[in-house]
Amino acid sequence: MSGNSLGLLFTVTSFGESHGPGIGCIVDGCPPGLALTLEDIQLELDRRKPGTSRHVTQRKEPDTVEILSGVFEGKTTGTPIALLIRNQDQRSQDYGKIVETFRPGHADYTYWHKYGIRDYRGGGRSSARETAVRVAAGAIAKKWLSEKFGIVIRGYMSQLGEIEIPFESWDQVGDNAFFAPNNAIVPQLEDYMDLVRSERDSVGARITVVAENVPVGWGEPVYDRLDADIAYNMMNINAVKGVEIGAGFASVAQRGSVHCDELTPQGFATNHAGGVLGGISSGQDIVVNLAVKPTSSIAQERRSIDKQGNPVMMATTGRHDPCVGIRATPIAEAMLALTLIDHALRHRAQCGDVVVDTPRIPGKIA
Amino acid sequence: MSGNSLGLLFTVTSFGESHGPGIGCIVDGCPPGLALTLEDIQLELDRRKPGTSRHVTQRKEPDTVEILSGVFEGKTTGTPIALLIRNQDQRSQDYGKIVETFRPGHADYTYWHKYGIRDYRGGGRSSARETAVRVAAGAIAKKWLSEKFGIVIRGYMSQLGEIEIPFESWDQVGDNAFFAPNNAIVPQLEDYMDLVRSERDSVGARITVVAENVPVGWGEPVYDRLDADIAYNMMNINAVKGVEIGAGFASVAQRGSVHCDELTPQGFATNHAGGVLGGISSGQDIVVNLAVKPTSSIAQERRSIDKQGNPVMMATTGRHDPCVGIRATPIAEAMLALTLIDHALRHRAQCGDVVVDTPRIPGKIA
Amino acid sequence: MSGNSLGLLFTVTSFGESHGPGIGCIVDGCPPGLALTLEDIQLELDRRKPGTSRHVTQRKEPDTVEILSGVFEGKTTGTPIALLIRNQDQRSQDYGKIVETFRPGHADYTYWHKYGIRDYRGGGRSSARETAVRVAAGAIAKKWLSEKFGIVIRGYMSQLGEIEIPFESWDQVGDNAFFAPNNAIVPQLEDYMDLVRSERDSVGARITVVAENVPVGWGEPVYDRLDADIAYNMMNINAVKGVEIGAGFASVAQRGSVHCDELTPQGFATNHAGGVLGGISSGQDIVVNLAVKPTSSIAQERRSIDKQGNPVMMATTGRHDPCVGIRATPIAEAMLALTLIDHALRHRAQCGDVVVDTPRIPGKIA
Amino acid sequence: MSGNSLGLLFTVTSFGESHGPGIGCIVDGCPPGLALTLEDIQLELDRRKPGTSRHVTQRKEPDTVEILSGVFEGKTTGTPIALLIRNQDQRSQDYGKIVETFRPGHADYTYWHKYGIRDYRGGGRSSARETAVRVAAGAIAKKWLSEKFGIVIRGYMSQLGEIEIPFESWDQVGDNAFFAPNNAIVPQLEDYMDLVRSERDSVGARITVVAENVPVGWGEPVYDRLDADIAYNMMNINAVKGVEIGAGFASVAQRGSVHCDELTPQGFATNHAGGVLGGISSGQDIVVNLAVKPTSSIAQERRSIDKQGNPVMMATTGRHDPCVGIRATPIAEAMLALTLIDHALRHRAQCGDVVVDTPRIPGKIA
Repeated sequence: MSGNSLGLLFTVTSFGESHGPGIGCIVDGCPPGLALTLEDIQLELDRRKPGTSRHVTQRKEPDTVEILSGVFEGKTTGTPIALLIRNQDQRSQDYGKIVETFRPGHADYTYWHKYGIRDYRGGGRSSARETAVRVAAGAIAKKWLSEKFGIVIRGYMSQLGEIEIPFESWDQVGDNAFFAPNNAIVPQLEDYMDLVRSERDSVGARITVVAENVPVGWGEPVYDRLDADIAYNMMNINAVKGVEIGAGFASVAQRGSVHCDELTPQGFATNHAGGVLGGISSGQDIVVNLAVKPTSSIAQERRSIDKQGNPVMMATTGRHDPCVGIRATPIAEAMLALTLIDHALRHRAQCGDVVVDTPRIPGKIA
Repeated sequence: MSGNSLGLLFTVTSFGESHGPGIGCIVDGCPPGLALTLEDIQLELDRRKPGTSRHVTQRKEPDTVEILSGVFEGKTTGTPIALLIRNQDQRSQDYGKIVETFRPGHADYTYWHKYGIRDYRGGGRSSARETAVRVAAGAIAKKWLSEKFGIVIRGYMSQLGEIEIPFESWDQVGDNAFFAPNNAIVPQLEDYMDLVRSERDSVGARITVVAENVPVGWGEPVYDRLDADIAYNMMNINAVKGVEIGAGFASVAQRGSVHCDELTPQGFATNHAGGVLGGISSGQDIVVNLAVKPTSSIAQERRSIDKQGNPVMMATTGRHDPCVGIRATPIAEAMLALTLIDHALRHRAQCGDVVVDTPRIPGKIA
Repeated sequence: MSGNSLGLLFTVTSFGESHGPGIGCIVDGCPPGLALTLEDIQLELDRRKPGTSRHVTQRKEPDTVEILSGVFEGKTTGTPIALLIRNQDQRSQDYGKIVETFRPGHADYTYWHKYGIRDYRGGGRSSARETAVRVAAGAIAKKWLSEKFGIVIRGYMSQLGEIEIPFESWDQVGDNAFFAPNNAIVPQLEDYMDLVRSERDSVGARITVVAENVPVGWGEPVYDRLDADIAYNMMNINAVKGVEIGAGFASVAQRGSVHCDELTPQGFATNHAGGVLGGISSGQDIVVNLAVKPTSSIAQERRSIDKQGNPVMMATTGRHDPCVGIRATPIAEAMLALTLIDHALRHRAQCGDVVVDTPRIPGKIA
Repeated sequence: MSGNSLGLLFTVTSFGESHGPGIGCIVDGCPPGLALTLEDIQLELDRRKPGTSRHVTQRKEPDTVEILSGVFEGKTTGTPIALLIRNQDQRSQDYGKIVETFRPGHADYTYWHKYGIRDYRGGGRSSARETAVRVAAGAIAKKWLSEKFGIVIRGYMSQLGEIEIPFESWDQVGDNAFFAPNNAIVPQLEDYMDLVRSERDSVGARITVVAENVPVGWGEPVYDRLDADIAYNMMNINAVKGVEIGAGFASVAQRGSVHCDELTPQGFATNHAGGVLGGISSGQDIVVNLAVKPTSSIAQERRSIDKQGNPVMMATTGRHDPCVGIRATPIAEAMLALTLIDHALRHRAQCGDVVVDTPRIPGKIA
């Protein structure tokens, strides 16, 4: 497999370029009998789609999805679910400079040396446009996890550039363009983004994703640890440069007596582990942080080289997100959902009939 | 696969429990013709083995490796290389309390609920003892990468608890028990660890690993990104709670004009990317940071529950590393080597005959 | 993976139902730089498509393929190639009886018990219509193998029902509707098929496929043997019940002194091995035979049961191939091509730089 | 993976050479809680081991197996089960001629060109000695399938050279050295083998394997069909040149009205399908035939070449099975067991909670 498939049992195989006919995927391994409609998927796509505020790219893509297979009379059949999103807004622009030079911070230089050929239109395969596919596939995973286990997967922006965003409430996440769990801070975020854009610059972000109600026992103990697969899936998101589970890098300076979560009959006393112990879910909330780098496409002149190795100066103009992190929350949720459903299926394959008398304690003390 | 195999083409399949007959692995996919001796592997194992200073566990394990197959007349044959390390120091101790209760911060509770059965002796499969296997397999990967491409993979401790360790020189890493690249700071580290131990506590660490001379073009662009596989492999190390590539979480607060590395004919101007662009190696140094949590086994009394769900107090006595991060450096190097060799083989499978006239620029400006 | 992906490095992931919106696949891992046009694929599809003679199903499907990604300016880019074939001729017929009963010899009963839900329209996912996808993907594999190594993959019908078809010439295979390498026998085949149809019955066939110019050294020695992967891929074709490599079942009664192919400087003296020794290609022609069972859909009344377990009598009317083997030749060629390209890539991953001084002998004595 | 791992969820990864320190495997994915003793495995190994009659190789190998991990207090823990069989009877013989020449019918020539290096001692990795490993792993699979589903997997020799062996009774299979289900024919088989040996020749065999009580619904519908995985696993056995499911090649000349098995409330009326419909088990007996070629190692002089390409004459002396088919029955049973357990786990991963009201009919009419 050449890096376009995710998952062992609930598998997503993706295709498509930014400015080709379309993007899509095949979801294989979905359990049969799940009620699934176009709306289930479209709702998630709409959360990620471009052009919804002035703080994101102005490319107009309705991201309308078509289900080509695997759903019959409103239910999944257990056969592959193929999803297709036609590209709409491929501008017939002049790619002249991009063809011959490598945009700094982008995959242009690496693709060229790897493949010897490159679809330069909008970044081709390396475009973040591909992430729509994951959101679509993730919507299926989310629905199954929710119906089967009551699992809730939600994310929010926890930092924008230098601005930390205190968590106020899940309810506020949907109220603003930033997925900020804090409406009061939104004006500050807007001013900040307006400034960044006016300076023809971009900025990073930190996203937090949480899964609640994950049963104890999912994940493999040594190499396909649940947290390792989460890290893998998150780092597979364009522009992500760091992943933390639970206390993450803060655990470096922690003492064991602080970090290590005590168990009580009423639940886990704390959650520094972030819901994973020894690679296996503990029943605590799964808490993940990701670092999203600033967009590489900025309108400032920067040094680069052309294909012949000559120095050039180039600015990347066009329709770009000044902070790719702003649209990253639904993607991160999708990736977490895809990780979890795969391990749910792996768990029941090997341990589906394990019964223990031991009570399960709550993920947290109520 | 139930989570005991790493890699698609250079595959490591691991087995073994802390207090069973032994641990080991099968390395499949190694290119034939590589000169390989027991010493090549033993040298790396000796860097990780316990009992080498007062700051690590006092368990006495020589970690002597046996090659069971795949090497003939001093060279790899292309067939599976099986490695076996017999356990030596399994104390016939009283596991009474551990049998019936779940140690906080350990995998006891999660294993029990996953499998319904648990080898409680020394943590069984969840013991960090298994990491010796990776170091052994990684030694093979390291050697091939070095001989074939001149790749150098090295790591060091960059933070111990609250103490940041300024990088002085690679030469000093081997001079001290901490893998600190800074001999001057070692007395401070020793005092700190003595204090932590005297307080019957443990502490976390940050490890940095670097790969030099990795050619441009390794890695897959969308899902098996090189950085995603690195994150996966690092998070598969026991006790790791966070992974960064390049600037990592610092990129959250960075502007694009700062983060994004310019290209010049003389090389990349900076390396915030950490050697990976669009999931593919850029020829820059690959730079990875990991957060290692404090050891969960501490001799302080802590709250937990037993199998019946009753509250208990328990302290974990025995021979434990007060900072598992101290021995993590060779493991992290091994995991990086295993990631790279797998992508080296994947690259030549798909793109082995790609030729471009474009010059490759140096990873950094000399 | 739930059984819809083929190959480790050149991967085909398929989707689609007989009477859904369409069928298609994602081809992942294709080497970059291969010149590829729609015509390359369409030509192979046209060899398999229905309705080309009175001896095959009269369903009208132009099988027009669309390339959705992975090809840029006429060349493969190394990214996934998505292929889509829209279904055209889905008759809005009354499926009443099929909905509630299980057609004998079909997957109706097994799908129902496996999934608990079934797209009964034309057999849904179990329809041989899906094989068009493999022919399309196989066309890409064939082209690469041909351009890179001069490999020629061809097949023919070697038996129809009780009629053995003596091989006359490859040139004649394309001259008739049966893929028979023997034009003189065609009238006899036609009469035979007319008889079978008039009796509302169906009949089996044997197909032979040959790959020439495969280099020595492809295949894995123990479990992913080249012949094992061929057997797997062939048995994955609908209705195939047996596979032979080289002498196949005839080798049961052979002596070692007869079966075992001698080597001479001028080439192998015979080819009972069918081109594979110890799981690895020998440079001889790869020769494969498959047994295709008679079509299960016949218009005679047969015993079956309904969903409640009651006995019913049913005849399967509609548009069906009276001998599915007639259209199987291009499918078998495609499957062989897909097997070979996967092993070609696997070979160069592990052994890409092996050099031996030993001369390669011809596959056969000229 | 380089061809030394079998299975997706119940995975066997094998290692070892004929004359190296030992052979063995890691079984990953075994469900936890299965009672497992050394004897369970040893009993199966003893059925395959050499030296038990004059009709098989006289190499003395007790094939004593050691369990290195994954079993605790007599039960599987869900972690990898490592098995080790030390080689005992590696004669320090003169390999001079084998080193420089390629034995006809063996993997010598293909290994050499693939890897550029070759462990020539006893065929190295290509030796049938490796099949002991599969029998050991298969014993675990067999036990789980038996305990969990009452599945019975048994095989027998159905033809030796030209002699067809009529099936009399399962009880007689264990009574003779040939695994013949017919004691009356044994003297004829013995005379035949004595003749073959006296002529310094070898001969092929056909083996039949049957699995009873397999539930309906195992297998994947399109590419990982149950019968395709069976064909793959069988063709992975050394010397196998053909595989049939159910009627196999006989189905070529069958009419649909004959081949296609009718369903009745009392069970399937016939079993030409061999227990698989549309790639999925039907509840009928799974019936598999394999063709085993005659041993390539014979003491007659035959033509070959040396490493420089010069013609040589060579006879293969030493301790060889004059009919490798004689010891193939336990191996074929093991491979069928390994195929079935993998699909059992895959089935419950995706469809573990499917409930249908439809009654399951018996595999055959009582």
